[in-house]
Amino acid sequence: MPEAEKHASMANAIRALAMDAVEAAKSGHPGLPMGAADIATVLFTRHLKFDPTDPNWPDRDRFVLSAGHGSMLLYSLLYLLGYDEMTIEELKNFRQLGSKTAGHPEVGEAPGIETTTGPLGQGIANAVGMALAERMLNARFGDGIIDHHTYVLCSDGDLMEGISQEAIALAGHLKLSRLIVIFDDNHITIDGDISLSDSTDQVARVEASGWNAVRIDGHDPEQIDRALTDARQSDRPTLIAARTTIGFGAPNKAGKSAAHGSPLGEKEVQEARERLDWPYEPFHIPADILDAWRITGLRARPRRKAWQERFEGLDAELRGEFARTMAGDLPPRLDRAIAELKREYAAEPPTLASRKASQAVLECIVPVVPEMIGGSGDLTGSNNTRTSEMKAVAPGDFSGSFIHWGIREHGMAAAMNGMALHKGLIPFSGTFLTFSDYCRPAIRLAALMRQRVIFVMTHDSIGLGEDGPTHQPVEHLAALRAIPNLTVLRPADAVETAECWQLALATSTGPSVIVLTRQNLTPMRGEYEEDNLCRRGAYVIADCSGDAEVSLFATGSEVAIAVAAKDLLDERGHPTRVVSIPSFDLFAQQSDVYRQEIIGTAPLRIGVEAAIRQGWDAIIGEHGLFVGMTGFGASGPYEELYRHFGITAEAICEKALARLEPKETD
Amino acid sequence: MPEAEKHASMANAIRALAMDAVEAAKSGHPGLPMGAADIATVLFTRHLKFDPTDPNWPDRDRFVLSAGHGSMLLYSLLYLLGYDEMTIEELKNFRQLGSKTAGHPEVGEAPGIETTTGPLGQGIANAVGMALAERMLNARFGDGIIDHHTYVLCSDGDLMEGISQEAIALAGHLKLSRLIVIFDDNHITIDGDISLSDSTDQVARVEASGWNAVRIDGHDPEQIDRALTDARQSDRPTLIAARTTIGFGAPNKAGKSAAHGSPLGEKEVQEARERLDWPYEPFHIPADILDAWRITGLRARPRRKAWQERFEGLDAELRGEFARTMAGDLPPRLDRAIAELKREYAAEPPTLASRKASQAVLECIVPVVPEMIGGSGDLTGSNNTRTSEMKAVAPGDFSGSFIHWGIREHGMAAAMNGMALHKGLIPFSGTFLTFSDYCRPAIRLAALMRQRVIFVMTHDSIGLGEDGPTHQPVEHLAALRAIPNLTVLRPADAVETAECWQLALATSTGPSVIVLTRQNLTPMRGEYEEDNLCRRGAYVIADCSGDAEVSLFATGSEVAIAVAAKDLLDERGHPTRVVSIPSFDLFAQQSDVYRQEIIGTAPLRIGVEAAIRQGWDAIIGEHGLFVGMTGFGASGPYEELYRHFGITAEAICEKALARLEPKETD
Repeated sequence: MPEAEKHASMANAIRALAMDAVEAAKSGHPGLPMGAADIATVLFTRHLKFDPTDPNWPDRDRFVLSAGHGSMLLYSLLYLLGYDEMTIEELKNFRQLGSKTAGHPEVGEAPGIETTTGPLGQGIANAVGMALAERMLNARFGDGIIDHHTYVLCSDGDLMEGISQEAIALAGHLKLSRLIVIFDDNHITIDGDISLSDSTDQVARVEASGWNAVRIDGHDPEQIDRALTDARQSDRPTLIAARTTIGFGAPNKAGKSAAHGSPLGEKEVQEARERLDWPYEPFHIPADILDAWRITGLRARPRRKAWQERFEGLDAELRGEFARTMAGDLPPRLDRAIAELKREYAAEPPTLASRKASQAVLECIVPVVPEMIGGSGDLTGSNNTRTSEMKAVAPGDFSGSFIHWGIREHGMAAAMNGMALHKGLIPFSGTFLTFSDYCRPAIRLAALMRQRVIFVMTHDSIGLGEDGPTHQPVEHLAALRAIPNLTVLRPADAVETAECWQLALATSTGPSVIVLTRQNLTPMRGEYEEDNLCRRGAYVIADCSGDAEVSLFATGSEVAIAVAAKDLLDERGHPTRVVSIPSFDLFAQQSDVYRQEIIGTAPLRIGVEAAIRQGWDAIIGEHGLFVGMTGFGASGPYEELYRHFGITAEAICEKALARLEPKETD
Repeated sequence: MPEAEKHASMANAIRALAMDAVEAAKSGHPGLPMGAADIATVLFTRHLKFDPTDPNWPDRDRFVLSAGHGSMLLYSLLYLLGYDEMTIEELKNFRQLGSKTAGHPEVGEAPGIETTTGPLGQGIANAVGMALAERMLNARFGDGIIDHHTYVLCSDGDLMEGISQEAIALAGHLKLSRLIVIFDDNHITIDGDISLSDSTDQVARVEASGWNAVRIDGHDPEQIDRALTDARQSDRPTLIAARTTIGFGAPNKAGKSAAHGSPLGEKEVQEARERLDWPYEPFHIPADILDAWRITGLRARPRRKAWQERFEGLDAELRGEFARTMAGDLPPRLDRAIAELKREYAAEPPTLASRKASQAVLECIVPVVPEMIGGSGDLTGSNNTRTSEMKAVAPGDFSGSFIHWGIREHGMAAAMNGMALHKGLIPFSGTFLTFSDYCRPAIRLAALMRQRVIFVMTHDSIGLGEDGPTHQPVEHLAALRAIPNLTVLRPADAVETAECWQLALATSTGPSVIVLTRQNLTPMRGEYEEDNLCRRGAYVIADCSGDAEVSLFATGSEVAIAVAAKDLLDERGHPTRVVSIPSFDLFAQQSDVYRQEIIGTAPLRIGVEAAIRQGWDAIIGEHGLFVGMTGFGASGPYEELYRHFGITAEAICEKALARLEPKETD
């Protein structure tokens, strides 16, 4: 078969499968796979380094379909290339419950899916994280072990989302030359022509961010090939703006938004088959075309085998370290290091802001867990996420282990997801808790993708003081606790901070948020306990003798306040116990027996948290008392704010007494 | 006084007040006010159109301090210009509880503060909304009534945040030539030199988005003046990149991040006074300098008076309409229009997705409330936010009332805030509920600023079906309900949709989110009720005879499921009532008596919502049953998903029977 004809057939195989699957599902997005089929064919047959028989090969090129709605492009490719689990049956079950072919690609559903995409812009930022991880691992393990590219296929929508511009600016700054973004420039959005909402010169815009960029005809295989070849030589990241026709091949809907997000319809599909000279039955790929794709799947096998040999030839220690970190296993020394630190703290309990305690913990554990990569969204001195030994990554120099993400919280969080997805590194980075809102779509995806990404969120309440309500979280704890598979940790002192770090690192199947104070905290845990008491989410931190009349439940900085209130109530003859709840999420996972034991039987339950009540009724009951916030904060010194909003030991005591001794106080 | 000397003295007055206030507060950000004092002096003395005696003059130029941490710049200006409420005492009480001088500027605290800033990037996007509102009102009321500029002072951080690039791209596309952004290009971020995290060519980047841009020396009054003059002539929005020295005047800290976010210290302030030739006591402004500023405050008074005359000369109807819309009053006809629609629905109850019901409501009310401005983040046909009569705003043509925001949810939400802050328009715009996460920082600010902005969020649960978990909200209802002063509305059918729109419009002191389904809903409200039953957040939608054994509580699409479950339970001899809860927020505001009446006394309470349980314990109690989601959704046809996740009448009935008839089912 002549080369051009072969290319066309291979690309048309993608188009046909996409049309057929969307038609069968009665929903989905045929436009992108049909429009980008030529790009994908050239990329996968001539450039991408991968081996379907070893989809987890650490040095494979990564391919990110940032425009996740075009999922049938990816599923078609995986089937055509011979990825084991992506059978033709899966394509026929596109968008059906239980299939591996969800509406948008989901990492973990089938090998070859590198990340979960759909929410636009996230894929580009994931890819920036992958490309950064690649260079950092390259700096650690050398060209023989990690030396690959990261390719992205993105849409107008990806580039319109602000997150992508954050990630693009960072990639340009750091000169991530192994990152190649192909922009499916089809001029069409859901509402219609791009001119309805945008007139950005995307090439000039990324050039302003330090990228190499080029415009090509996205249906001309040679132009695509040349652009990819050039991009691989560039010393900067590259954007290839590939002009395409959405729904290429559909006689009436091509080039229109009608091709974007719904089945073409039986008649249009029939006519598209004629137009594309594709006379085959739905879901049928002729043997010669399938063979051509399967041979492409074999292309990089020799390189993968050579890599394997190089890997086996590595120094045993380095090989072990690479294998351990790629597997995501923690070094056994970690637990010992934390135990030692807890012993020190028990011997000499420190009064520290938990953000400072966190830095102390990091000083102790990062040397033991060198795959931990710190960072901050331009709040390094406030988030305390940089240890004294950490060198910052700089343009072209990836030997460091700390990243200045800039004022780009969303891009930071999504790039951290990409680093975790790449494997080999454990990213942790900080911003203020109130700006968790800026990161939220990426935090959600970390949870959905089950990635170990550790978000360090400091300045966690009105306790930050004078910066005022724009910077004071009140609803953020509740909002984060609401995200499934996200572990929110709010330690009460230095010991709990150490334990929470231990838990976050051990949580390998999901992200954690460690929530820390700006203000100093009184030590609460004076005695050494080998057990990680935060592990079950809640525990009795101060008990009373005899049956408790009052159970106080508190988190973080409010634990000390609750313990002070307990002293007042004890003095008044009302035996009171205090439960610290470093993690609602972990507590919710405990047995009913444990939960009931911790919730206890005291007739009066009081929750104390400098935040809103939502979520607390599950612990204190609908008739429990709550001492916290009911609205936004205010600007002022933090001690005054705590008094102003009534979050003090005295206020707790007063509220409790109004219930316990109604005659006296009513 | 020679002009140059006068300028220097006036600018130094800002610098001195900023240093003094931060010193007195022992916290704050002196660097920006000192660096940008020359810019602000030229802008306010020679360009900005304003009148301190009428701070709400509708045609005033708007000034947005996007870099809100530099709040002392704004407070100093307001004091120097003679704004009534900004006394020297307020400056002395900078960042103290109860002052008007919060850490970051807060709209409503004092006249002259146009928006609440601090979370970076938001101010630029607010300003885009203001500039857009200006042009739209100009198209409606003419050059004589609305014809002003919107000025922004922003920082590196503002431009690094993705939201600003969304807003900038839209402003360039729409050719918002009245928008002038001055970039305080001081090369310093909190972590240090900008080169740690960024090497973007900001001028080239905005030019790629269709802006005019220029670089100037931000300490040269004549360059500043010329750039502003040129910008006012441009047919495009303008970025003026003004190179400045952060902390200008501080002998040791100027040009360093040390000047950014903490007091300079007594010695440095003393030396800065010498350097700036400012021998005056803290907080003391010599009479001649204060006079020069106060005279500036009088500059535009004749223009304001001329405006007043033009306004009074307007056609009475137009004048009345302008006054009404600027005051934010709704037309009396609105309630009648909604009552008529409810009567129609009662006569012929429609089976409609609530997003389609919402469109029908809009078709009915937008003609009555012409200040309503629709829009969508490129999901117009899905969000159903465009009525048949609405024309879209286009580059240079602002006569429409619908905005194609593009795939820029965050920029959209923040620009809507700016439109509301401008006054005269009521913005409502849509995206999918899952992407409320992308808008979240702006939604929070709408709530904090008490602005009437209506977010229409469709595709509100697993009910969206095949698009899968990336697009299926499960935690978003809880997360939105957590935001103080935000009214979340989730109607159960077409009648409730009409009532929810009525409530959202009537909520003039805060934003609302109207949460709508993709899938069809069975009508629940067959009888006409004059009263808006959604008004109190929850009401009995289906009662039983005699004492209820079961109370079912549900929202939105789950109300029909709960009513079907009630029928099953009634049949089994367990009298069951159903409560519809269109708004948790409104319900929480009701009296205890009303709340208790609605919660009722049935021994078994069950909550039903295709979302997580968080927040429900306040209604169903900690031992109540909940039928909903415990994790992320899945991709598949929606009816199958409801069955798969056990959110069906049968599943509710089964769970209830396990409690009600334990011997039979256990």
